[in-house]
Amino acid sequence: MSVTHPAGFVAAGTAIGLKSTGAKDLALVVNQGPRFDSATVFTSNRCKANPVLWSEQVVKDGVVKAVVLNSGGANCYTGPEGFQTTHEVAEAVASKLGIGAIDVVVCSTGLIGLRNDRQTLLDGVTAVHGLLSAEGGNDAAEAIMTTDSVSKQVVVERDGWSVGGMAKGAGMLAPALATMLVVITTDAEVPAAVLDKALRDATRVSFDRLDSDGCQSTNDTVTVMASGASGVTPTAEELTAALTEACTSLAMQLLADAEGADHEIAITTVNAASEDEAVEVGRSVARSNLFKAAVFGNDPNWGRVLASIGTTTAAFDPADLDVAMNGVWVCKNSGPGEDPATVDLTPRQVTVTIDLKAGDAEATVWTNDLTHAYVHENSAYSS
Amino acid sequence: MSVTHPAGFVAAGTAIGLKSTGAKDLALVVNQGPRFDSATVFTSNRCKANPVLWSEQVVKDGVVKAVVLNSGGANCYTGPEGFQTTHEVAEAVASKLGIGAIDVVVCSTGLIGLRNDRQTLLDGVTAVHGLLSAEGGNDAAEAIMTTDSVSKQVVVERDGWSVGGMAKGAGMLAPALATMLVVITTDAEVPAAVLDKALRDATRVSFDRLDSDGCQSTNDTVTVMASGASGVTPTAEELTAALTEACTSLAMQLLADAEGADHEIAITTVNAASEDEAVEVGRSVARSNLFKAAVFGNDPNWGRVLASIGTTTAAFDPADLDVAMNGVWVCKNSGPGEDPATVDLTPRQVTVTIDLKAGDAEATVWTNDLTHAYVHENSAYSS
Repeated sequence: MSVTHPAGFVAAGTAIGLKSTGAKDLALVVNQGPRFDSATVFTSNRCKANPVLWSEQVVKDGVVKAVVLNSGGANCYTGPEGFQTTHEVAEAVASKLGIGAIDVVVCSTGLIGLRNDRQTLLDGVTAVHGLLSAEGGNDAAEAIMTTDSVSKQVVVERDGWSVGGMAKGAGMLAPALATMLVVITTDAEVPAAVLDKALRDATRVSFDRLDSDGCQSTNDTVTVMASGASGVTPTAEELTAALTEACTSLAMQLLADAEGADHEIAITTVNAASEDEAVEVGRSVARSNLFKAAVFGNDPNWGRVLASIGTTTAAFDPADLDVAMNGVWVCKNSGPGEDPATVDLTPRQVTVTIDLKAGDAEATVWTNDLTHAYVHENSAYSS
Repeated sequence: MSVTHPAGFVAAGTAIGLKSTGAKDLALVVNQGPRFDSATVFTSNRCKANPVLWSEQVVKDGVVKAVVLNSGGANCYTGPEGFQTTHEVAEAVASKLGIGAIDVVVCSTGLIGLRNDRQTLLDGVTAVHGLLSAEGGNDAAEAIMTTDSVSKQVVVERDGWSVGGMAKGAGMLAPALATMLVVITTDAEVPAAVLDKALRDATRVSFDRLDSDGCQSTNDTVTVMASGASGVTPTAEELTAALTEACTSLAMQLLADAEGADHEIAITTVNAASEDEAVEVGRSVARSNLFKAAVFGNDPNWGRVLASIGTTTAAFDPADLDVAMNGVWVCKNSGPGEDPATVDLTPRQVTVTIDLKAGDAEATVWTNDLTHAYVHENSAYSS
């Protein structure tokens, strides 16, 4: 049910022929109110896809009434023609719903540089609109999948209100490329400004700390819509906690389904001078191909961890770093520690703990290992 | 002959038992004068190996009389014990040559976190000293190899003087991890200050623009020694040109031998607002695993190039970028250009040209593709 779990939302997903496989490829999520508060975060990539350029305008006033999402083509780097397609899709959705196009967020995912057939999309809007229902969340979540092997959905229940969500993404997560699309719904009654801060706080510690392969997408969009249908107004803290729970669950589902990965790796940096420095250190390790290949080989290669830490600007003494892998402190004071042979890296879940001994802040960054399957999927994806 | 080609140098390389394979693993290069000017650049990694910590002190006065290099262990993250080993090796070399240890640069390469047996090294110094000769350049170059499949050597001839060089490194090049060690010799008569500027100018456009896998080493060292034995004093421009030629040749040899690579990729950014911005753009593409995996798959995926450019701070219009692969402009004005099917990516050499249309500066960054063999070598290297 996911996005249709909170009151006030209908959704649908169907196959309109964009995907050559015949799988579902168009989704629509509609907020039926009574309120239409919203917040959205986009990719920080400067080369943005046409749907992002369109939706950036839509979200400015904090009102979003519908999100239409297609897989089977990212509509990115497709020029003014591609922008026109996005615009016409928004107009078509608006016309069916009796709202303004300026309240319709558009998301697309799939190959970059490929033009989607406009008529197929416009016909598809009619089809998907006819299927809208309060049970449509599952179909919508399936329709946004690309190389995802499973759909990603979440429901967070609170007393009298709830949060629902769906996501797609299986690579290029940084928190970015391959396109991560997320739609979150809630029936809480929340002003757009409060929703915006809560969403940014939630994504900062979830999607923004997912760095599967260091590549940043052109299409990433995370939109939350609040219908107010529950009549309940949570505090800002309660809302942030619920959104963080939903975003973290979806982020972990994305991580677990990353293209070709054998391991999910949680890199926790402790005793950093600041949270930002803890994130910088974690991200540097998450982007080391050598470290990631070593994990694939079940090799607790702490030297590659230290070498990555050494490229950052964080405060630490290079001669006094500790590193644990799966709980074994294989590196103490920047030298050999406990016996690496006692580290068991065969489980899918791997933890790396880095002690900077420079303060009391900490943060976790999540990544995947670098595998033969990653290379295969990403060398064979397009042509 | 390489490092022993210029007059005034002797060298040797021999097997002392650090490598389990019995291959050569200790090299010594000695400047016999009459002058002993030198210049050195080290890794910018903050986590430096013990030999780097030692050698940073050695090079401060611009005088280096010998470089001793071992493979079979990086002596990195081995604590005060490891530093003491480095120091004693320098003392042993100095004692044999009748010089001060403070004029002996020490380099080590191999696994991080592994202590080298000190007595093996000290005995080895006696052995390698006994083999010093003006024909020893080739043996020295072989003794510094780790996962290198061939030794890397260069000779640049000028009128009455010359430059010789040797290098090792086959991965972790950024221009860094896996350790890139380079010794360059010249019989030109050059003050250390002039040599220093020429070396920095030469490495800036050669080793510093090699980004094989984005990982930065803890041991990288490039040392040049000038014996003055030719009696010829080239101009600063002539010296810089000769050093640049030698460094570029060695850099291209490193690139061609990078672990597991199927392609050498030259990414040239043109019409940038500054050379720094051209380098930033090239490096961002060189570090995209998605782009590198696509090249491995012979897929001219220009969307992944644009997505990487979009993560930089360089000046450009996101709607007006052109990208060519092997001479075919597959992306024009940030949209589809010439037919990607006409791009032949089967040759080992691949060129990517990025036109930022923002100025008149340009720079080339070199990288490799991301292959199954890279993942294999780097997951199996240590344990």
